[in-house]
Amino acid sequence: MIVNDPTVLSEVTDAVDAYEAALMANDIAALDDAFWNSPHTVRLGVAENLWGFAEIAAFRVGRTGGSPPRTRLRTEITSFGSDFAVANVAFRRDDTGMIGRQSQTWIRTRDGWKVASAHVSLMQAGADQRLAST
Amino acid sequence: MIVNDPTVLSEVTDAVDAYEAALMANDIAALDDAFWNSPHTVRLGVAENLWGFAEIAAFRVGRTGGSPPRTRLRTEITSFGSDFAVANVAFRRDDTGMIGRQSQTWIRTRDGWKVASAHVSLMQAGADQRLAST
Repeated sequence: MIVNDPTVLSEVTDAVDAYEAALMANDIAALDDAFWNSPHTVRLGVAENLWGFAEIAAFRVGRTGGSPPRTRLRTEITSFGSDFAVANVAFRRDDTGMIGRQSQTWIRTRDGWKVASAHVSLMQAGADQRLAST
Repeated sequence: MIVNDPTVLSEVTDAVDAYEAALMANDIAALDDAFWNSPHTVRLGVAENLWGFAEIAAFRVGRTGGSPPRTRLRTEITSFGSDFAVANVAFRRDDTGMIGRQSQTWIRTRDGWKVASAHVSLMQAGADQRLAST
């Protein structure tokens, strides 16, 4: 299994960057398109647990104004073989300054790279948030 | 790509269950052994961001008493092909009753199934925590 094949890594990096742009623009069609349309898809968010694509899509529509603006501090992507990758992002929320983290597992499908599993959270208050950017 | 091949799913389920047992026993050798020994491995915890296996192992040693006891509420595992899987767990902390979530991406290596990426968090206070067990 080849870890971090340059072509694969480049493709997934583009997908992660496109997702970030769609999130900041609250482009719901693009956000939906980024996720694997399957009952197995999971998205665990800051304040919600969503099991299956239908719950995820409903959440997007219901979130007025979309995601709070944020700035990425660190992005680490690792690909495995040609069809699988993980992307971990540390970010700072522009409004509160809180440190958040986003983890995504990407799979290559016939329709391109899709997120099969995602987890977004804010670091527990009181944590040494400097760790996020080291 | 075969999703949820029964044999693969069974192997990963065993690995996830063994990880849970090791976590509750604070069996540091088993916890270390469950993670991919690579600088690419990431573990984003409730109050810490750990980049690379070395930081993860140091955290295990430094966490006196190990993980707070918890009870799993829901476990969803999906495998892709023969070498990749994601496992998402919702849990309740036995002490505070808070709802937490654990996401892991597992890869098959020459040394068996290993966690290449993990994210653990508590749901934001005020969230509808009933969602975790629906």
